[in-house]
Amino acid sequence: MAAAEGQWVLMATGRTPTNIAVIKYWGKRDEALILPINDSISEISLLGGRFQSCLREIRKRARDFEDKEKGVKIKKEDWDKLHVHIASYNNFPTAAGLASSAAGLACFVFTLGKLMNVKEDYGELSSIARQGSGSACRSIYGGFVKWCMGEKDDGSDSIAVQLADETHWNDLVIIIAVVSSKQKETSSTSGMRDSVETSPLLQYRAQTVVPGRVLKMEEAIKNRDFESFAKLTCADSNQFHAVCLDTSPPIFYMNDTSHRIISLVEKWNHSEGTPQVAYTFDAGPNAVLIAQNRKTAAHFLQKLLYYFPPQDNDLSSYLVGDKSILGDAGLHSMKDVEALPAPPDTKIPDQKFKGDVSYFICSRLGAGPKVVVDEGQALIDSVTGLPKGV
Amino acid sequence: MAAAEGQWVLMATGRTPTNIAVIKYWGKRDEALILPINDSISEISLLGGRFQSCLREIRKRARDFEDKEKGVKIKKEDWDKLHVHIASYNNFPTAAGLASSAAGLACFVFTLGKLMNVKEDYGELSSIARQGSGSACRSIYGGFVKWCMGEKDDGSDSIAVQLADETHWNDLVIIIAVVSSKQKETSSTSGMRDSVETSPLLQYRAQTVVPGRVLKMEEAIKNRDFESFAKLTCADSNQFHAVCLDTSPPIFYMNDTSHRIISLVEKWNHSEGTPQVAYTFDAGPNAVLIAQNRKTAAHFLQKLLYYFPPQDNDLSSYLVGDKSILGDAGLHSMKDVEALPAPPDTKIPDQKFKGDVSYFICSRLGAGPKVVVDEGQALIDSVTGLPKGV
Repeated sequence: MAAAEGQWVLMATGRTPTNIAVIKYWGKRDEALILPINDSISEISLLGGRFQSCLREIRKRARDFEDKEKGVKIKKEDWDKLHVHIASYNNFPTAAGLASSAAGLACFVFTLGKLMNVKEDYGELSSIARQGSGSACRSIYGGFVKWCMGEKDDGSDSIAVQLADETHWNDLVIIIAVVSSKQKETSSTSGMRDSVETSPLLQYRAQTVVPGRVLKMEEAIKNRDFESFAKLTCADSNQFHAVCLDTSPPIFYMNDTSHRIISLVEKWNHSEGTPQVAYTFDAGPNAVLIAQNRKTAAHFLQKLLYYFPPQDNDLSSYLVGDKSILGDAGLHSMKDVEALPAPPDTKIPDQKFKGDVSYFICSRLGAGPKVVVDEGQALIDSVTGLPKGV
Repeated sequence: MAAAEGQWVLMATGRTPTNIAVIKYWGKRDEALILPINDSISEISLLGGRFQSCLREIRKRARDFEDKEKGVKIKKEDWDKLHVHIASYNNFPTAAGLASSAAGLACFVFTLGKLMNVKEDYGELSSIARQGSGSACRSIYGGFVKWCMGEKDDGSDSIAVQLADETHWNDLVIIIAVVSSKQKETSSTSGMRDSVETSPLLQYRAQTVVPGRVLKMEEAIKNRDFESFAKLTCADSNQFHAVCLDTSPPIFYMNDTSHRIISLVEKWNHSEGTPQVAYTFDAGPNAVLIAQNRKTAAHFLQKLLYYFPPQDNDLSSYLVGDKSILGDAGLHSMKDVEALPAPPDTKIPDQKFKGDVSYFICSRLGAGPKVVVDEGQALIDSVTGLPKGV
């Protein structure tokens, strides 16, 4: 991001992780301020970006800035007169229910704050990000984050807090199945509004079910209790989609492939007697799968690739992110994938669903937003102040 | 059905309609007596059959019987010593969430009652049928039927009552889309038990949502108010499936084809400004579609056949039941189906889903159980007392 005026360019570059809710946010009590009807808890996984505007709120908090080397001096009140070029790049599937917009918005707030020398704490920044896109407030931190719904009408107490940083429970491995879909999906903004207006089950969920679940989830995270974590995560994902289905007209984010992945996890967990993998789905058909550790993740990847082999037989582009998991799973080439035996414990009819998953992403719990120091990675040209390659 | 002893055969033949719940039954408060946790309302459509045993309850109520012509005399207490051959035939897809087991069980109770000269009223018969398969109690009547959950521990007040017979609202036309499915489905008995044990939303639905809906549905039926009827029917179907999804492990009865049919109905209803067609899904992917009248049904059939043409291009076997609806829709051959224009109002991407529907059934509100007088239609041989063709 850059502000250009006359001869000089001032630039800040940031990257922000996306976040996946394990206790879901669905339903606003205030549309304008984006205040939720329940608390939610997310865990940060990958990096991503897409932008909308929280410019006004950040500008309000802009402070004096001086860079003696460049000879740049900006008075607090002058930020309003400066032009801003914003360039954003998202390395995550957009509009696929993977909170890419939340990450983009959080990145925008965080980076613009750096540019304009804003000194607000992370709670305050999360509140600004929230006003752009509700769940963006959770992307202001890494690790496990709770968005407290707050009680005040002005929303000032509806902020995110970090429950634990990304090092607290670093055994967890995240595999995301990006599911092919031909269906046009309902945006979460309009879907949420429809649910608040028409679902008889939503208020009950928000008022009666979620508060207890949030407490249990905080305990599970604190104690690194994977069994409780997995049960709560799966149950809350399913209940969120149940509320979507209880909406008029009903909203379907999951498709047959999503259902098959759930079935695979449920049957494996059942046969092991204790949860190995948790699943959660946001506003789209993609599965976010959280394995207890790397060994479990590698084992699970074998099952996933048995049922969902790559359409084009190209293994190397079929798993992005931490590709080393393939080696752990003993999958060095398509020959290894083809040689995988049918999982005995999952009892799915022996059928394969080639092409039903576009690709997989393997990741870990991520850190919070970061300033990118290397100018080579900046998206703005430091001389012209314009986006690179435009 | 026939009882054979020595030289003579005594025989009774009955047929019973299946029933589709428009306010759903999901969850038992007593597993042994099959007592539900909420009232439900169904409307009877087609004929069907599959049997289980309610023999004991009917035998208890058996009475003296005499057929002077055949020289048969059976004392009340002698029914216990007689052998019974039961033959059952089902002209409806079984285990596809279309209540074929309910119809079979109700048929069994009704016909065995006729055979054994039972004089209990229909309420009592419905209570016996309930003990074999919950929703079977609703198949003891035609037209619109309410299964009152009852309050007593012994279940004696958990019976079905007829709200209106099949002539009350005879404009309604029912189209059933029998959806192809490769998935093994969860039986409703075990699914229901899982929901009672694990779904936080189920009790809220049964105690808070359904009672109001049952009252509104009774009003809508009484006033032949299609708009209210359709809205309640769709909302209750969706809420039932929401509760299935809120179960651990989650239950998915609907698949992508079911979702597409819902989308088609919702978009058409929305574009017309008032409901034209209602949908409801039981424990399977098949859509039961209720059109306001024959004209609407014919119009809707065009849309259905545009998106879901027959796999084998054979139109005549693709719609069973009242085939004359095809003529009303101007569909006399596959040429007419192929010439159908893309529905402008449904905004589904212009894509066809050949083979995703196995076939359609067209029907009307049905009458209650009937004795079949024609011995040619009996399934038992009147001389041997054994099932025909065995």
